[in-house]
Amino acid sequence: MKAKVHVTLKNGVLDPQGKAIEHTLGSLGFKGVKQARQGKFIELDLAETDADKARAQVDEMCKKLLANTVIENYTIDIEG
Amino acid sequence: MKAKVHVTLKNGVLDPQGKAIEHTLGSLGFKGVKQARQGKFIELDLAETDADKARAQVDEMCKKLLANTVIENYTIDIEG
Repeated sequence: MKAKVHVTLKNGVLDPQGKAIEHTLGSLGFKGVKQARQGKFIELDLAETDADKARAQVDEMCKKLLANTVIENYTIDIEG
Repeated sequence: MKAKVHVTLKNGVLDPQGKAIEHTLGSLGFKGVKQARQGKFIELDLAETDADKARAQVDEMCKKLLANTVIENYTIDIEG
């Protein structure tokens, strides 16, 4: 199964990469950008064939490695 | 409007961050990970209210700043 994981900074956590994107887009002439936030997108190819088990496994991976749950949120999408 | 941009490395391009995730997950005891790839996820908040114009604008942003189209693919989702 394939798992897609989005890791994003929690609201209120300073996002220097997002700020850099905002400023650079502004200086390139894109004036209508109110906010930019940058997160991570991780695609995993899993041997597990059961969707529920795969989700539980990926949830563990997020907690142990992929996300810093103090400052980051994560979402998991499992695909067949 | 909100735009969600995924920037991923093209197939065949070496992904050191993905390899690091693979190896670290393996050493943490997650044995069923066949492949991991890491990309970027960028959320933009745009003043533009027309979905087609917003998409065209974000496409330009990707080409000029957000993605390196030599080695990266990008996808754009526009939300109301």
